[in-house]
Order: sequence, then structure tokens, then C-alpha cells
Amino acid sequence: MDAEQPITPAAGSHEARLDRLAELAIRVGLGLTPGQELVMTAPVEALPLARGITEHAYRAGASLVTTILADDQATLARYRHAPDASFDKAPAWLFDGMAAAFRDGAARLAIVGDDPSLLAGQDPDRVARVNRARSRAYRPALELITSSAINWTIVAAATPAWARAVFPGSSEDAALAALWDAIFAASRVDGPDPVAAWAEHNAALAKRRRMLDERRYAALHFRGPGTDLRVGLADGHAWMGGASMAKNGVVGNPNIPTEEVFTTPHMARVEGTVAATKPLAHAGTLIRDIRVRFEGGRIVEASASAGMEVLERMISTDEGARRLGEVALVPHSNPIGRSGVLFLNTLFDENAASHIALGQAYAKCFVDDNLSEAELADRGANRSLIHVDWMIGSAETGVDGITAGGEAEPLMRRGEWAQ
Amino acid sequence: MDAEQPITPAAGSHEARLDRLAELAIRVGLGLTPGQELVMTAPVEALPLARGITEHAYRAGASLVTTILADDQATLARYRHAPDASFDKAPAWLFDGMAAAFRDGAARLAIVGDDPSLLAGQDPDRVARVNRARSRAYRPALELITSSAINWTIVAAATPAWARAVFPGSSEDAALAALWDAIFAASRVDGPDPVAAWAEHNAALAKRRRMLDERRYAALHFRGPGTDLRVGLADGHAWMGGASMAKNGVVGNPNIPTEEVFTTPHMARVEGTVAATKPLAHAGTLIRDIRVRFEGGRIVEASASAGMEVLERMISTDEGARRLGEVALVPHSNPIGRSGVLFLNTLFDENAASHIALGQAYAKCFVDDNLSEAELADRGANRSLIHVDWMIGSAETGVDGITAGGEAEPLMRRGEWAQ
Repeated sequence: MDAEQPITPAAGSHEARLDRLAELAIRVGLGLTPGQELVMTAPVEALPLARGITEHAYRAGASLVTTILADDQATLARYRHAPDASFDKAPAWLFDGMAAAFRDGAARLAIVGDDPSLLAGQDPDRVARVNRARSRAYRPALELITSSAINWTIVAAATPAWARAVFPGSSEDAALAALWDAIFAASRVDGPDPVAAWAEHNAALAKRRRMLDERRYAALHFRGPGTDLRVGLADGHAWMGGASMAKNGVVGNPNIPTEEVFTTPHMARVEGTVAATKPLAHAGTLIRDIRVRFEGGRIVEASASAGMEVLERMISTDEGARRLGEVALVPHSNPIGRSGVLFLNTLFDENAASHIALGQAYAKCFVDDNLSEAELADRGANRSLIHVDWMIGSAETGVDGITAGGEAEPLMRRGEWAQ
Repeated sequence: MDAEQPITPAAGSHEARLDRLAELAIRVGLGLTPGQELVMTAPVEALPLARGITEHAYRAGASLVTTILADDQATLARYRHAPDASFDKAPAWLFDGMAAAFRDGAARLAIVGDDPSLLAGQDPDRVARVNRARSRAYRPALELITSSAINWTIVAAATPAWARAVFPGSSEDAALAALWDAIFAASRVDGPDPVAAWAEHNAALAKRRRMLDERRYAALHFRGPGTDLRVGLADGHAWMGGASMAKNGVVGNPNIPTEEVFTTPHMARVEGTVAATKPLAHAGTLIRDIRVRFEGGRIVEASASAGMEVLERMISTDEGARRLGEVALVPHSNPIGRSGVLFLNTLFDENAASHIALGQAYAKCFVDDNLSEAELADRGANRSLIHVDWMIGSAETGVDGITAGGEAEPLMRRGEWAQ
């Protein structure tokens, strides 16, 4: 797109932008191939987007689209009225069916639009039991997704409850419109040719990834208000970000939007202090002003101005919960960061600014494929039951790459790429 | 209920009646047992009823309720845009999952609200291919339902498209309200205690069934305008109707509403002429003024003032399509018949008046259980790929029971039970 263009093309009607998002999800998110089946999940409030995606899937040659619509009211009815034994039960028959579809070649698309505080008033023990039962039952299907056996993607739809949480001061209609605007902008469907915009965006991410891979930095050094943090990188780490190819040979973008390039830190080589630049929405609670000090890769001091108890419980989950599993670089000027919106949804918030994640590392972020657990540990990959991203980048953040020889090279200055 | 009561209790708000229908579906339709899982299917437009049923299921102790919502727009998108090969594909992974849930003890509830003319404009060959693929994929699940391995029920929700088809002269709001009124009345939830009303209704149907079983009639003789039809009954036939016990020991009502008592005719012992008393909605077409003559159990003459081609194609499906598989007695004064509404939905229309069905007979309508195919044929049970009910009863219909000795006993007069 030409920055000199005197007239910005109109963003178009809501319906036009919804249709472009649907087309993008099929063509760029999934790269759906002719004859491929599609299994979609969506909140029932996202029906208009699901319909658009269904149409574009069939236009792209889908053999069959099956959508499982979820209803928050049914979830709440369960917490209100079900017998206690219910909370250890999950629809294994449905999840096993989905796994069977994936093994048979189906692609997977999830529309997210979760109410961030849906279960705020419920018994945390019951919430945990339901999550555990669902995780266990969904594992066979999830493994096919996380191992990239199939092409999959996540896109978002604004729902009334989510919009109210993000824009609490607005009327429901205004909040919904504002959240849709933010989703369309973040998903880069506001321009006249989103597919071309994503090709350009993916090329830029790939270039950035290759540059970082070539440098083979030993560490990254973050500096900013309250932050002086050195993050050692895992031995043999590789950078990921943007489009990727699943094992079935299909190229897609597993997240829409995505702005990050990310890799695996070394679990024992993180030193210094870091201050979060945005509140963290976790377990139905906003944790504000997180400050943490690392020694030998491990959190030895932590504080927050709100939600300290939740933060403490989180980092006490297991030994790995006090160590890093991901470090991601995101320029401050990207569409999500510029919007200034706190989405209360990881799909968006982790793409607003550079971030780190406590907990489990990604096996795919290594030069060598198919490393064993022992090999991963040997290279410094962290293990944990949790993986929680939080933002540490801002317009005031500087990042240096530290070479194996100990030299510092400027990577980011004032939140933007320096090279 | 006291007929002398000077003030009729108010029918209540739409929400109150919807809630009573939801409770009835769980308590009377399914007889859901504590700890039992529930698998529900519903059109997305029936979400409010699905939510009510979910709540009552959990109140009754359901371990988990999973609802698969269907969207007509997704179906139409497929016919408009999918590649030709799509039309032989069905979501076997989902249907196999449902069968697994049933084998694991789950109950099954279907909310119907079909648009009777959804596929009117589509290629009939593609419609047939989709139906065939779905039937084949759903067979393992359906066999658990038709063999009564589990408790199951069907209830109805008014949907805009269905309401427009039933009340074409009304505004959409008025049509929807009128169809809901008709559904609530037919489902007997207009009174203050629907569960008690159904207990009374089931007791009346059971009494009628027992009376007919004791008589062991050799035949029924229908008389009315254009009708002089003798329907021989199968040897060892038994009458069904109202509540029944599934093989899992749970007593439920598989259809809400239900008004019929029905049994199996003898495929070779039907003689005379019969005129339909209502149009028949079949394959997206209204067949009007059906008149048929049987000889030796077989249709030898058939006519209709509209839809003759569809009627001809239907009775030419196979040899059994020209013979009877069911005969049902329904008094004209029941709530559905009294409403005068042609619902264009078998769940309702077959309960409006006495009817016969061309095609496949029910194996369960015999005194002896678990008869082999050969034994069933020997007793006169018809076999066919079709089973199409059509109404032959009216306020002018008389029915005699013909004893083994050839004596005629009055069963119905002017459309009502004579004894």
C-alpha cells in the first residue's frame, strides 16, 4: 500500500469487513485446500462470522464444514444447577470425534470471543475441575493441533460480554462497535486487500525471523522504566513468527492477528529486574504493576499493586512456573499496540508489545526438529504446567542482542526495530 | 382439572410456557435420570428452548448437557458454494461420537423446527445424495434410538421459516406467535400442571391400547367421505402409544406431542378406497386430495389434485411403498386436530387425525419381542425404504373393529371414540 495515497479507502460497512475477515481466516489463516473438511468452534454470538467463514470455506472447495456453537448460558446453567459430580465430566465423545476428524485430514478453526469474567463468581475449585476434565478429554485433539499435524487457526469475534469488559464505560452497542473496530484493525482487514497485506506482513515477519536466526544471539537485554533484564536464549534456539507450514504441507497463520517473533529463553540464564507495561488478565483477575527480579533464571522477588495473591499462586504452581518459557519481540507501533486497547484476551494482548512468558517452552522453537525431552532440557527449555504471557515492552523499551562474544548490538530502540 | 372452574387459569407469558415445555421435555419426554448425560440437537433459532431444557436437565441431575446447534444458513451455503463431491459427505466423526455417547448411557433429545421448504429450490439429486450420506453415517446412532436402547424424545420449537410456511398470510411476528401457541397447546403445556396433564393423557392412551390389544381385531373398517377401507391387522400385532420404557429401564414419551395409538397392518389384507383428509407435505411438495384404491394390500389406483408426480414417485420407490406399514387411530377432538393447523411437520400432523402410513412397519408393534425378519414377514409386516404417514380421519370418520369371527364393533363414530 502506498503511504502517499491522498485518499484512504473507506473501511467499508461492518458486513464488508466481516466478510473480509472470514475470507482472510480461510485463505490466510487456514490456507484451506480443496476437498479438505473443516471443523469450526464458535460462541453462538459469533454466528454471523461463522456463516461468513462457512461460505468462504465452501468457495475454497471445502468438502464439509461442521460448526460446534458454544453457549455461555449453558455453561452458567451448569454451575448454577448441576450436581457436584458433573464438574469432573467432559464431552469426551465430542472431542474424540474431533480428533478423529483431524486424523482424517480436517482443518480446525476456532472463533474466540470469551467473556473474560464469565466464571468470576463461581467456585474456583469447580472451575479448576471442569478445566482439568476438559483438558484431559481434549488432549488427543489438542496434540494434533500443537504438534502442527494439521492446519489450524484462531480468529476473534466481538461478543457483547467481551465488549462490555473491554469498554466498561460505553453503552453495549458502542462497546461492541469499538471492539469490532479494534479486531478488524488488528486483523489487518481494514485495507482494500487484506490477503495482500498479510502476504507483506508475513514476509516482514519471516525476514525478521531469519535475521535473528542468523545472529544466534546468546541473550537479549531489555531496558526501560523499571526494567533491566538479561534473557539468555536456549542453545540451538530458532525464532518463529507469522506463517508456518503444518506437517500436512499446508501453509497458514495459526493466529489472526499475530505480530510477534518469539523463541525459547534458557531457563537458567535470566538475570535482573523487569516491570510489566500492561495489566495481566489471569484467572478472572487483573494483576497490576507486576515487578519481578530473576536470579539464575528463577524469580526471587515478585510484587504487584493489585492481584498479588493470584500472582503468588500462579508462580507457585510448580518449579517451572518461576522461570521463562518464551521471549517475544513486538514493535510498539503495530496496529494492536497503537490501538491502546487492553483486550483481556491473549490472542490480542500478547501481540501488543514485547513480552515474556512464565512456564512451558515451545519444542518447535529450535533449529533441530523432534528433540527429546532430555535434549530439550539440556538446551535450556523450561517445563511447567503453565504458560502465561505478560507484556514488558513499551514506547520506552530498548533491546540489545548480546552476541556469543559478549558484544551488545541494538535490536530495538524506543519500542521500534533499530535495524 | 375441574371443568366447572369458572375462571380459566391464564396461559402465562411466553417465557413461562417455554419453561413448562422445557421441564416437560426433561421430566415426561426423557424421564432423565440423575447422573445421566444428555446430547441435544436443535436449530440455532431454538436457542431459548434449548437453554430452558439445559437448565431443567441439570436440575434433574444431568452430569453434562451438550447441544449441537444446526444452522440452515450453513446448509444453504453448502448448496450454493460447495464442490460437487461435497454432497456425498457427512460428519461421520460427529455421528460416531453421538453413538459412543449413547452406548455410554447418554439420553437423546431433538428439538425440531425445520423450514419445510428450505431445500425447495435445490437440485433434488444433490438433496438425495446428502440425505443418503447422512443416513448412512447416522445409522449406528439411529439404531440405538429406534431400537429404544436409550431414552429419547422429540419436541418442537417455532422458528421463523417454519412459522411463515404454516401461516403464510401473517406477518412474521404474528406467524411465530401463532405457531408457538399451537405448539404449546398441542404439547399440553397450557394448563397449570403439564406433568400431571401428561400423566392423565398417558394413562388414557395406555387404557385405549390395552382395550385394543384385548380385542385382537382381525381388521379395522374405515368409513367416511370417499373412504371405504378395510385394513387387516398383522397376526400377533400389539398396539403402541404414549409412554414407553426404553431398554435402559427409563420410561419416557419419545414424541411430544403424541395423540395416536398405532399398530401394524397386514401387508396383504388391505382392501377398498381411501381419501386423504389433509394435504400431505412430502419432499418439499404439497400433495392434495390423495385418493387410493387397494387390492390384496397393494395400491392399484392412485390420484391427487396436486403433486401427483411426487405421489407416483413415492409409491414407486419399491414394492413395499405400495403397501401399508402402520395404521393409527387418533380422535378428531384432540388439541392438534381441534387447532385446525396444518403444521407441515410429521410430529404434529400425524397426531391430528387417524392415519395410515405407506412403507416400513414397526417391529415393536407385536406381542412377541425380537422377532426375526422372516417371522415379521410371516405375520404380515411390510418392508420398504419409505415410511410416509398421511391423514385419513376427520369429524366424519367412522371406524369399526372387525373380530376374527367377522363381527363389526363400533370403535369410532364422527371422529371420536365410540367406546
